[in-house]
Amino acid sequence: MELTRRHALTGAAAVAAAPLLAARPASAAAPVADKQAPSFYRYKVGDIEVTVVSDGRNTFTFEDSFITNAKKEEINAALEKAFLPRDIMTIYFAPLVINTGGKLVVVDTGNGPVAKVNSKGAAGQFADNLAAAGFDAKAVDMVVISHFHTDHVNGLLTADGTPAFPNAEVLVPATEWKFWMDDGEMSRAPAGRMQGLFKNNRNIFDAALKKKVTPYEWGKEVAPGLLAVETVGHTPGHTSYVLSSGSGKVFVQSDVTNNPNPFATNPGWHAFFDQDADVAEKTRRRIYDMVATEKLMVQGFHYPFPGLGHVEKDGNGYRVIPAPWNPTI
Amino acid sequence: MELTRRHALTGAAAVAAAPLLAARPASAAAPVADKQAPSFYRYKVGDIEVTVVSDGRNTFTFEDSFITNAKKEEINAALEKAFLPRDIMTIYFAPLVINTGGKLVVVDTGNGPVAKVNSKGAAGQFADNLAAAGFDAKAVDMVVISHFHTDHVNGLLTADGTPAFPNAEVLVPATEWKFWMDDGEMSRAPAGRMQGLFKNNRNIFDAALKKKVTPYEWGKEVAPGLLAVETVGHTPGHTSYVLSSGSGKVFVQSDVTNNPNPFATNPGWHAFFDQDADVAEKTRRRIYDMVATEKLMVQGFHYPFPGLGHVEKDGNGYRVIPAPWNPTI
Repeated sequence: MELTRRHALTGAAAVAAAPLLAARPASAAAPVADKQAPSFYRYKVGDIEVTVVSDGRNTFTFEDSFITNAKKEEINAALEKAFLPRDIMTIYFAPLVINTGGKLVVVDTGNGPVAKVNSKGAAGQFADNLAAAGFDAKAVDMVVISHFHTDHVNGLLTADGTPAFPNAEVLVPATEWKFWMDDGEMSRAPAGRMQGLFKNNRNIFDAALKKKVTPYEWGKEVAPGLLAVETVGHTPGHTSYVLSSGSGKVFVQSDVTNNPNPFATNPGWHAFFDQDADVAEKTRRRIYDMVATEKLMVQGFHYPFPGLGHVEKDGNGYRVIPAPWNPTI
Repeated sequence: MELTRRHALTGAAAVAAAPLLAARPASAAAPVADKQAPSFYRYKVGDIEVTVVSDGRNTFTFEDSFITNAKKEEINAALEKAFLPRDIMTIYFAPLVINTGGKLVVVDTGNGPVAKVNSKGAAGQFADNLAAAGFDAKAVDMVVISHFHTDHVNGLLTADGTPAFPNAEVLVPATEWKFWMDDGEMSRAPAGRMQGLFKNNRNIFDAALKKKVTPYEWGKEVAPGLLAVETVGHTPGHTSYVLSSGSGKVFVQSDVTNNPNPFATNPGWHAFFDQDADVAEKTRRRIYDMVATEKLMVQGFHYPFPGLGHVEKDGNGYRVIPAPWNPTI
């Protein structure tokens, strides 16, 4: 056994004097990974297996007028209270893959491949994380869309504009479908963002998907165990879901709130993308009162990954308590 | 364009009558994965890259007398308040890999390969998740141990009892080393758990590692940017760390608390594995007052993965607020 500096240092007496860092031999620097883990997470709801598959994040500044009815100082105070940085707002995107045992169901599709390029990989991660989670897009049986905003529908297409889930039935809320496909609504929409949304939806659903969609109604199962629930305001046909199997139950809220900090803690604050902000707020308070009272787990599309948690009342708002990550399932 | 049932359903009129589920063709059931994502997570502290690498979890029942000074009803009330199941307590294990650019440093090593077998994979996941995160155990330069409990040291060895990090210097708290290697302390230790810990530590450090360790002192850097801090009580030499680089700073708390629910929310509760429970409680309150006041981020070995968060005072205790998962780094 070679007598090394390490052996000499094992005696307690030698410790105090040891210049721990100086005497170490230089080793080759290990390269930093500089890449996050593939962001997917699985859990069971009864017999159903859910995989949360992150689409990444997007960061806004206050110049984006993210919140229309709160002052900059109020928003910064709420961010600081949540230990979040001032002057910016980060939101997350979390489509789901639901394996019912009989059907492989995707719920919402993320920002899509163009956003991936534009954001330098911060958003539009869904397709990559889907593959990392072991799913083949060709094996998806159904794609269920909650509403027709870009971060939910743009992942329906690949970079070359063809269907990203070529063998899937695409299910859309009937009311949402009617709104965005209505030429009168389109002609009356304000220029800018709303006109852009109409054009984007026509491009996806009309030009690319040739209107091959199945509209669905609220109050009915759209897939085994997945009940569609009306939660309008954010959009005219905005839909949430109750996913249940056996004694397991999760409320899949879609965009009832955006990031719970600050939109659950301040349910009266209106985000610029709530199309009818007053109705959206009423829906938000109604749903959050319900999930808090029933202690129902909530899966939030814009919550920080993996986006599963419980809701409790806190003052005039609500606190979302993330479910602990289970290293097994 | 083929006229299919899907096209027939695109009209809003057809929707209400559509038996959505009944008419779908049966597809081959997609197999459920039944396996969690590899549980690792990266973040930066200045120029330093941290990878949290989960070792899994362990679940105790109240028959294990996990908390020595609280009644079963009080504990269940605290668990329910945190939306956790009654009558059981789950704790998590999160060793770290710290890449300083110059050194690859592992902090604590998890429950080891025997625990992996005994727990059927629930614990002892560190080696697997380390590989999933892209690390080669042979490339690790230093292994820093916070204290000598089995869930921190047993991962020092492989299943065949050889060093798991064959090229690494093993750094241990000088006070901890002195305690567990002292024959008088060993002879005076109560039979059962404490005797078992002594034997386990002698097996690892004496028989397997041949005492090739470097004891370190509190108040000094044990690796670049990693300052050792005295936080005794849990064990005689229990050590935490301040990791800092540039303006980035994280308090690596080791076992100052176990799972924050219920041990941060109830800092006066004593876990059976706190060797000097009164001192451990004093340390816990001192450190949590400090990190709450300084708004210092905390990395907790027993927090739910990925174990990074902020601490705020809440009534007579503390609330840990998990940092949002960053899908990029």
